[in-house]
Amino acid sequence: MDTLSTSINVISTIIETTGTAVFTINNLWMMIAAGLVFIMHLGFASLEAGLTQSKNTVNILFKNSVIPVIGLLTYAIVGFNLMYPGENFAGGIFGFSGFGLWTDGTGLTKAYNPGYTYWTDFLFQGMFAATAATIVSGAVAERVKLSSFLVFSTLFVAIGYPVVGMWKWGGGFLNEWGFYDFAGSTIVHSVGGWGALAGVILLGARKGKYVDGKVHPIPGHSMPLATIGVFLLWLGWFGFNGGSVLSADPAAVSLVLVTTSLAASAGAIGAMVTSWGYLKKPDISMVLNGILAGLVGITAGADQMQPLSACIIGFIAGIIVVFSVLLFDKIKLDDPVGALSVHLVCGIWGTFAVGIFGNLAGWHQTLIQLSGIAIIGSFTFTFAFGIWLGLKKTTGIRVSQEEEKEGLDIGEHGMSAYPDFERISQY
Amino acid sequence: MDTLSTSINVISTIIETTGTAVFTINNLWMMIAAGLVFIMHLGFASLEAGLTQSKNTVNILFKNSVIPVIGLLTYAIVGFNLMYPGENFAGGIFGFSGFGLWTDGTGLTKAYNPGYTYWTDFLFQGMFAATAATIVSGAVAERVKLSSFLVFSTLFVAIGYPVVGMWKWGGGFLNEWGFYDFAGSTIVHSVGGWGALAGVILLGARKGKYVDGKVHPIPGHSMPLATIGVFLLWLGWFGFNGGSVLSADPAAVSLVLVTTSLAASAGAIGAMVTSWGYLKKPDISMVLNGILAGLVGITAGADQMQPLSACIIGFIAGIIVVFSVLLFDKIKLDDPVGALSVHLVCGIWGTFAVGIFGNLAGWHQTLIQLSGIAIIGSFTFTFAFGIWLGLKKTTGIRVSQEEEKEGLDIGEHGMSAYPDFERISQY
Amino acid sequence: MDTLSTSINVISTIIETTGTAVFTINNLWMMIAAGLVFIMHLGFASLEAGLTQSKNTVNILFKNSVIPVIGLLTYAIVGFNLMYPGENFAGGIFGFSGFGLWTDGTGLTKAYNPGYTYWTDFLFQGMFAATAATIVSGAVAERVKLSSFLVFSTLFVAIGYPVVGMWKWGGGFLNEWGFYDFAGSTIVHSVGGWGALAGVILLGARKGKYVDGKVHPIPGHSMPLATIGVFLLWLGWFGFNGGSVLSADPAAVSLVLVTTSLAASAGAIGAMVTSWGYLKKPDISMVLNGILAGLVGITAGADQMQPLSACIIGFIAGIIVVFSVLLFDKIKLDDPVGALSVHLVCGIWGTFAVGIFGNLAGWHQTLIQLSGIAIIGSFTFTFAFGIWLGLKKTTGIRVSQEEEKEGLDIGEHGMSAYPDFERISQY
Repeated sequence: MDTLSTSINVISTIIETTGTAVFTINNLWMMIAAGLVFIMHLGFASLEAGLTQSKNTVNILFKNSVIPVIGLLTYAIVGFNLMYPGENFAGGIFGFSGFGLWTDGTGLTKAYNPGYTYWTDFLFQGMFAATAATIVSGAVAERVKLSSFLVFSTLFVAIGYPVVGMWKWGGGFLNEWGFYDFAGSTIVHSVGGWGALAGVILLGARKGKYVDGKVHPIPGHSMPLATIGVFLLWLGWFGFNGGSVLSADPAAVSLVLVTTSLAASAGAIGAMVTSWGYLKKPDISMVLNGILAGLVGITAGADQMQPLSACIIGFIAGIIVVFSVLLFDKIKLDDPVGALSVHLVCGIWGTFAVGIFGNLAGWHQTLIQLSGIAIIGSFTFTFAFGIWLGLKKTTGIRVSQEEEKEGLDIGEHGMSAYPDFERISQY
Repeated sequence: MDTLSTSINVISTIIETTGTAVFTINNLWMMIAAGLVFIMHLGFASLEAGLTQSKNTVNILFKNSVIPVIGLLTYAIVGFNLMYPGENFAGGIFGFSGFGLWTDGTGLTKAYNPGYTYWTDFLFQGMFAATAATIVSGAVAERVKLSSFLVFSTLFVAIGYPVVGMWKWGGGFLNEWGFYDFAGSTIVHSVGGWGALAGVILLGARKGKYVDGKVHPIPGHSMPLATIGVFLLWLGWFGFNGGSVLSADPAAVSLVLVTTSLAASAGAIGAMVTSWGYLKKPDISMVLNGILAGLVGITAGADQMQPLSACIIGFIAGIIVVFSVLLFDKIKLDDPVGALSVHLVCGIWGTFAVGIFGNLAGWHQTLIQLSGIAIIGSFTFTFAFGIWLGLKKTTGIRVSQEEEKEGLDIGEHGMSAYPDFERISQY
Repeated sequence: MDTLSTSINVISTIIETTGTAVFTINNLWMMIAAGLVFIMHLGFASLEAGLTQSKNTVNILFKNSVIPVIGLLTYAIVGFNLMYPGENFAGGIFGFSGFGLWTDGTGLTKAYNPGYTYWTDFLFQGMFAATAATIVSGAVAERVKLSSFLVFSTLFVAIGYPVVGMWKWGGGFLNEWGFYDFAGSTIVHSVGGWGALAGVILLGARKGKYVDGKVHPIPGHSMPLATIGVFLLWLGWFGFNGGSVLSADPAAVSLVLVTTSLAASAGAIGAMVTSWGYLKKPDISMVLNGILAGLVGITAGADQMQPLSACIIGFIAGIIVVFSVLLFDKIKLDDPVGALSVHLVCGIWGTFAVGIFGNLAGWHQTLIQLSGIAIIGSFTFTFAFGIWLGLKKTTGIRVSQEEEKEGLDIGEHGMSAYPDFERISQY
């Protein structure tokens, strides 16, 4: 019957169109999320440059401009296929599905999964990958040798991060165990933090930071730059956490954005209250790091928390970050921007908090969370320590004392970040 | 019949899917709009820091970093439920539906309204809320006591703004009267402006600004920072006005973005022509304020105007802002960044313009617009004046003369925004 | 029959809803893309200010704030209707459909085409239009007279760009010939570059740049600003290239974003390796320009390339840009920010590359590409040269030697970008 066949045709078209519509929205959100994660690299560049001295600014900017570049290229060559190897990998520990990206055209025309195309997946995950290396950049700033840092970053982001990431997000053994890390408090932030810790230990402190048992703070050269950095990071986190839903699902994404923003806010208050009360001055760098602490803290469980829990997690992260900064100085681990406190310590806190707060809370989950933290920490620290040590033994990882004094901008790059302005020689 | 029941099932699925698709798009746009409004806070921070002296930069950045934080948290605790109390409130003047956000899980799974989820609504409105307080920050800069400002901001954004907002957007009495303020020329911008005016009056001018009957301009310390601020504010206005459509409706949102951008452009031209002709120099701070003037001016009627009307409204706003800045200096109300001229004066102009231009133009509407402006102005000014006065009588609202001279960065925060650079002592 | 008529109603509603959903998504993406292209103007402002001297910063910021404003307004008045004149135009060379934007309300309510409304189309294309003029701004910086530059920009963006744009995107003769320029390597970037070249030739070099046959580099005053600029430009390119798909088509847009980002990355590596190897120092301005070179290079064929081709095109662009900068200095064409190398040279390279790589590769296409490059180049250069020459003969296009020495900020604007800081007098 004509009517019947017409109906069927109409309905088929409708089904196709509605499916297309839903897929297109999901994919659109994931592309926007990739753009937001991209802008986090500008956030890190600004924050790290702002919290360090003006004689090392070109060097910071150079590193942080090149890291996303290296991240995307190595992710295209090996990282993506190491992290998401598909079905075949040995015991959930390692897998690899070959070099490069699909070039047979399949990726161009068909849906990759219900949320996004193959290309969107690569772009989002690739932007993510580079953030782990960016975290290291700040902690080793003002003394690391440029060429060695670039070698470290390349290996770290090409191999270290994707292998660990596979354990959870690529369907590896930690995923089987039930380890939960929604958007990467551990897999991205503490991974970056462990890489930073290894570097900081092997590099040693900046000259003049710890003298005669006293800590001599070396203030950052531009608070506006640092503030711009933190705001861009918060904005970028909309994509970092919101995109980790892997679709535009209204309830899930909007809850995640609320828990993320409330945790950031509570982190700022936690750090403000602590620094004002304990250090007697409302220190802006503490408030900025408090925002980041809250963001890192909520990242592991952003989709599992009620607003109040998000506030508590963020507030505690804001307190932790202040004392952690003081503690690292006490044990003479010199981290110019507080990256260890923000990303490593609060990354661990956030992952642990999934066992205490929210839908997954419970002793069993807490133990799994701790196992995941420990296993990923051990592997990443060892891996990073190995690379840094190899570089130290061969090309060296630290600039000369003269170069450090004069600044890495002149030493490594032969130029100044602010040639027009009279500088105060401080150190 | 099998075929029939199958058909019904297929059709039900389709209806559900299409409904989901439309809802998901709307919600996606509203979440993005929330992100855009968020970035306005960075815009305000950059603009206000750029237009003030470098000795007060940390203080500005501190205030403007903490304001969105306070805004979101207080909005979660009381503001949201004051502003949108639901059906039950007394005579359209006041209502409250209880403390905190829904935590029974309802918000997680079901559509809140056709445009967005409960969480998206909170996030968008919460980001909005804090902008009113940010406006105050610039006007009272370079002399206000940090702790008092934080107390003021908290009360202003937790109670003042939501109560006024309810009168229109929460379905209160001004809404019943037919008062029109699409995205908040009055409800956000002039509300912020009235709060600023009260503070400026009670604080008094900065030392050295008005001496022997003459105005001594105190130039801002970084035009790049100010420019970055204005561009980010314009971008953020895509979300501020575009999101106020409360859905992704293609015709409505795209018209709003066009009227918004044309008004901004015409505002820049109006301010450029006026300042070039009247002050003999093309002053960049005037052009930047002209862009903002156009944006504030179009905000009340962005969805009701044709492109030409938007240009006229913006152009007039650009002229107004130049003369307004001169006028406030004449009457010795010291506003370092021009916030009174941009947000209060052009906010009033924009609200009034809805009665003159566009779909709603007419005498009746003009009278209602004027009533709304007057009622909201009276309440907000009184409310803000009361808080400022209370603070002045108790903790004080102004820093000491020594601290003002030395700068609030050292005085309030014990640090400098640019420790590496030689500063010229100007004032 | 009731059931039948009900069915028909239900199905009609569904069809309408699904159509609306798809249209709404497409339109949403195009509006977001317009916002991203808008932020490129902040990117250009930051980059150009960063790469020039601090005594000319207000002037750069002024120009780059006013350009998008002039761009949008002239595009509303004539540009849009010159570029997309509809069916009736003479031989594909010129057409005009009247002054102003639709104000009959049609644009408000109905779909303009499957991808977006009339208003969205105007906004996206209008934001695009102004970028061509922004490119000129950097090349003529530090010596061009403000008023003359504003006149040039107005004519260039109101008439020059839309006429050329029509030849391809408005359905003109180059489109008929099969010329391919996806998002404007030629139509936007080299058009801007040709306008810049004409200005640079007629203006002459900055005092002190070429003395006694030697090149004296004049370093930019703020590398953070330059870096912020490049990151914002990369982000903006998500909209520039991604929006040029003219819908949110998942496969097409996501491929474009991947090729765009990989080309940017490869461009950075190309420029880094070349400058490190050839100039012996890893120069950050070269890496930043390498990113832009890759972006400009991929723009003509971003939707036609596989990832590997995108990397090759970008890598070559990164090499080209370094040698091109050196070459322009050799022939004493003084371009403070490298705009000629990035936009003109790499714009040509990218357009040419469409004939060599990707889906369209072939001799025939290569010839067409070269024809398009030549025709557009000849027209644009002549048009721009004519305006610059006319201005030179009448009002003059260059500031006085004293003003150039003192800086255009004081000379043209009577103010300083950084009044608080001690400056080093360099030139």
